[in-house]
Amino acid sequence: MADEVTLLDFWPSMFGMRCRVALAEKGVVYEYKEEDLWNKGELLLQMNPVHKKIPVLIRNGKPVCESLIIVEYIDETWSHKAPLLPSDPYERARARSWADFIDKKFFNLGMNVVMTKGEELEAVKKELIQSLKLLENELGDKPFFGGKNFGFLDISFIGFYCRFYSYEKCANFSIEAECPKLIAWGKRCMEKDSVSKSLPDPQKVYGFVLELKKAVGIE
Amino acid sequence: MADEVTLLDFWPSMFGMRCRVALAEKGVVYEYKEEDLWNKGELLLQMNPVHKKIPVLIRNGKPVCESLIIVEYIDETWSHKAPLLPSDPYERARARSWADFIDKKFFNLGMNVVMTKGEELEAVKKELIQSLKLLENELGDKPFFGGKNFGFLDISFIGFYCRFYSYEKCANFSIEAECPKLIAWGKRCMEKDSVSKSLPDPQKVYGFVLELKKAVGIE
Repeated sequence: MADEVTLLDFWPSMFGMRCRVALAEKGVVYEYKEEDLWNKGELLLQMNPVHKKIPVLIRNGKPVCESLIIVEYIDETWSHKAPLLPSDPYERARARSWADFIDKKFFNLGMNVVMTKGEELEAVKKELIQSLKLLENELGDKPFFGGKNFGFLDISFIGFYCRFYSYEKCANFSIEAECPKLIAWGKRCMEKDSVSKSLPDPQKVYGFVLELKKAVGIE
Repeated sequence: MADEVTLLDFWPSMFGMRCRVALAEKGVVYEYKEEDLWNKGELLLQMNPVHKKIPVLIRNGKPVCESLIIVEYIDETWSHKAPLLPSDPYERARARSWADFIDKKFFNLGMNVVMTKGEELEAVKKELIQSLKLLENELGDKPFFGGKNFGFLDISFIGFYCRFYSYEKCANFSIEAECPKLIAWGKRCMEKDSVSKSLPDPQKVYGFVLELKKAVGIE
């Protein structure tokens, strides 16, 4: 019997994009279910009763929550193809640490860059650029964070690439001027079908960001 | 050449305890270095320049940061003995999700229970008890979270067991009355040398908590 795989997701979510890209890398056929986060569906509440958050991956009725945990689950479940995590324990820990940095630090900076203004925005923008430079430094001269091959850390960060345009528009700067290697990396990733077909258009994401700003009164 | 292993840690840290217990489970000989968090050492700043936080595990000069990542690294590096994570991908994801719950939700509730008072404390205490019940429910009738064997999720949570006394004293309630199975689990874990020799005395931890409360003016 073939696996029944469903992804509960929300189109502008960088966390959801991780799961979409990982599933595409593995060639897994799945049903995509868009969630209305302002009116959460029964299935989401039942499958993720603790956090009530997307993304949730459901395989044969069993849910897995939290995007990085889902990506590792995908890697371990469909292990015959396109390994995502490195095999060396130290390199695995390193990739996991940077993914953790993206979740604990970079995500919030990105949110603050689009949701603040004035002096506060200038301070946050500076911090965001510092974090981008740290990530660029980790990339170095490799084509991908995973080295020659696109892998776990690339998947963890690529969703943010389609939000770069929003950061630039909201904070009036150029990421390419600050971090050219990071932009080259993003373009390289976008050449892969698994990425380009899983990410929404940056302009559409910016439209969503503008709606968010309007909703909380920051224009 | 034998591995050179060092742990940068701080004695009351539940995150540090995870690493101590995991290293003890694997029988790894290591040097323990106590950090003064109010006057961080050169080695800590050099080994964890991004977060500047303990614990840091250094193996042959290479640092690994973030406690759950360290525990997975320990499991993968010394894989010949006492496997910590389950082998089944779904069970692995499940253990990782609950560990994530402990870090993102339970830890903060625990801090709030010892650092608030009055009505706020009553609300937080209620939430803490709810979270303890969720964890007790996940344990069920198994001897350990990992099933028959002590494993990753046990290690992720056991450090909090020696803070239970502080929660009870600060919020005036009995965890055993609310969650008897969880207390039985804690006692079972404490029968293991790897745990009892890695955890500080709960009364000493409470002394530390009282100092923290005093420092921020909550008495």
